[in-house]
Amino acid sequence: MNNFNLHTPTRILFGKGAIADLRQQLPQDARVLITWGGGSVKKTGVLDQVYRALEGMDVREFGGIEPNPSYETLMKAVKIARDERITFLLAVGGGSVLDGTKFIAAAARYADGVDPWHILQTGGSDISSAIPMGSVLTLPATGSESNKGAVISRKTTGDKQPFHSEHVQPVFAVLDPVYTYTLPPRQVANGVVDAFVHTVEQYVTYPVNGKIQDRFAEGILLTLIEEGPKALQEPENYDVRANVMWAATQALNGLIGAGVPQDWATHMLGHELTAMHGLDHAQTLAVVLPALWNEKRDVKRDKLLQYAERVWNITEGSDDARIDAAIATTRRFFEQMGVPTRLSDYGLDGSSIPALLEKLKEHGLTQLGERQDITLETSRRIYEAAR
Amino acid sequence: MNNFNLHTPTRILFGKGAIADLRQQLPQDARVLITWGGGSVKKTGVLDQVYRALEGMDVREFGGIEPNPSYETLMKAVKIARDERITFLLAVGGGSVLDGTKFIAAAARYADGVDPWHILQTGGSDISSAIPMGSVLTLPATGSESNKGAVISRKTTGDKQPFHSEHVQPVFAVLDPVYTYTLPPRQVANGVVDAFVHTVEQYVTYPVNGKIQDRFAEGILLTLIEEGPKALQEPENYDVRANVMWAATQALNGLIGAGVPQDWATHMLGHELTAMHGLDHAQTLAVVLPALWNEKRDVKRDKLLQYAERVWNITEGSDDARIDAAIATTRRFFEQMGVPTRLSDYGLDGSSIPALLEKLKEHGLTQLGERQDITLETSRRIYEAAR
Repeated sequence: MNNFNLHTPTRILFGKGAIADLRQQLPQDARVLITWGGGSVKKTGVLDQVYRALEGMDVREFGGIEPNPSYETLMKAVKIARDERITFLLAVGGGSVLDGTKFIAAAARYADGVDPWHILQTGGSDISSAIPMGSVLTLPATGSESNKGAVISRKTTGDKQPFHSEHVQPVFAVLDPVYTYTLPPRQVANGVVDAFVHTVEQYVTYPVNGKIQDRFAEGILLTLIEEGPKALQEPENYDVRANVMWAATQALNGLIGAGVPQDWATHMLGHELTAMHGLDHAQTLAVVLPALWNEKRDVKRDKLLQYAERVWNITEGSDDARIDAAIATTRRFFEQMGVPTRLSDYGLDGSSIPALLEKLKEHGLTQLGERQDITLETSRRIYEAAR
Repeated sequence: MNNFNLHTPTRILFGKGAIADLRQQLPQDARVLITWGGGSVKKTGVLDQVYRALEGMDVREFGGIEPNPSYETLMKAVKIARDERITFLLAVGGGSVLDGTKFIAAAARYADGVDPWHILQTGGSDISSAIPMGSVLTLPATGSESNKGAVISRKTTGDKQPFHSEHVQPVFAVLDPVYTYTLPPRQVANGVVDAFVHTVEQYVTYPVNGKIQDRFAEGILLTLIEEGPKALQEPENYDVRANVMWAATQALNGLIGAGVPQDWATHMLGHELTAMHGLDHAQTLAVVLPALWNEKRDVKRDKLLQYAERVWNITEGSDDARIDAAIATTRRFFEQMGVPTRLSDYGLDGSSIPALLEKLKEHGLTQLGERQDITLETSRRIYEAAR
């Protein structure tokens, strides 16, 4: 097992009606900016519940954070946060609102005179302060509600890049599975696929004998496989929604990745697809992962075989046959969730691959994967195989 | 799944040499009191390493915290902490040092003129402040390094009681598996059994469809079963020690118990055995658990069957036969670890059972278990069956 430094300080308030405990999580004299996305939190009444919970407090709001939250939009909120001397940010929504709010939190306190896009160019390493934040989560998927990472896009340049900082780790997260009943099936499916791929990016690498980490990762995958399809079929099954929600949080709060190698190449190749072609984040993952696993089957052999056996109960045939079966079964699971797994399913013929590779190069993503051996040439083969 | 409020803020610094990061975890102007136990940290050099890491800082020490840390001993440290205006406590040792230090932390800031034994009488509910603390762990077992609980004994009265408070949750824990190489086999075995029983006390209850919690609990149990015997056979196998250490922390940091029923009757019946007869904590658990499971097999039926299948791969025979096999196999595992599972193995013939029941009654422990249906009469049957 590798050494690690793990800090998971976000308080989780989980369950039906958990918003009742929201108010006591904030400093009572806070100047609060509520952030939200496309308006579904207005339609579903979640935003009203938040306002009722904070009644009498000093509250403003900023709506309209889009999926793949953009620098251009977020900088408007940064201006409000600075002008209004906001002391607490409350993100109400899914991963995009969370990620966008993390950027607002750091950018509002960023060095004077420096363009906050610099945060993305430095991966967050020079953030020294941020406005404290919490969240009311409405979409289980990204795990952003209890980690220190975020991904921000820039429309004018077609960039989509991550940053990390302990300063933007949310203080708390309200997770009420009931809030997810009204999600469109596409978002439910995307969330399950996203959480699934987060898990395998920290698990299907090479073995370091991290037995707790492996067992926990397998537990998350088994839960998503059991509950994901049910979440689509029975949208108001509380326990199913609760299990999906808790699985997504555990998939990316740092726990299963502590002390083990991590990959993340699928995410990096996927980000370029979203930035260039507008595919949903989870769609890009479903497209890239099977192709990447096939390409890297040799260095991932031991863990792919473990995954095949413990997650899918695939025990018959040669090593390669079991790996083939594990990849095919994973692909079928994504497609069962309604998320196609080929570029062609999204109307892409591969002609943009040279441009995608240029973007990877521009972003310095030329040595990806747990062994830094996914070069631009490897990425090209993966994109080609994903057509 | 039940609602929950989960906060796991202890920073974990895990791995060989992790003490290198100790100093930066403390306020640099802290007045530190190092607490330790019977002296093994002196013999092994761990205490020297701590002193070197804190060189130049304002440091005092208090040694001699015994197993089952006693109010009588700890009150001496409380006096030092108050007199010397200590601002940070650093526990160096195992669960007893941790638990004792939690008591010191809370008692030193307890209401003027109130005997801090009141903390135990109120279960910690009226603690409003505590000296911040961290730890360098040398014995994986209790999970105390990253939770808010502690168990304190009082020699003069033969009491052993728990308390809980968020104020005593350690800020950080240094977990270096190498520190555990020199542990006596009995302590290694006790630690594995303790962590195992912590896990099942949060798992073998009744189902609430908490799939992540169940899978994580099973993962901890499987790891302890695989690694526990190896830890005895290969004391310097780093990965084995690392897996046992991480399993013990995960077993009782709040994660697997969030949103699910909990039992803890085995611990409560065990505490009385330790207080009255001086058995090691883990020995009492190994004695009580099989008898308790057999007694409560009906209300625990579903989870005992799940445990039998997923943890021990017991799938043949009637429900009762599988439960019998699961209990017998668990007993064999404890004995394989060198921890006997009958009162008679410790020279006890059961004649103290009436006195043990009196103590349970005195401590208000007359409705134990996840359904509060373990009455004094049930406890009597469990003690009798454990002879």
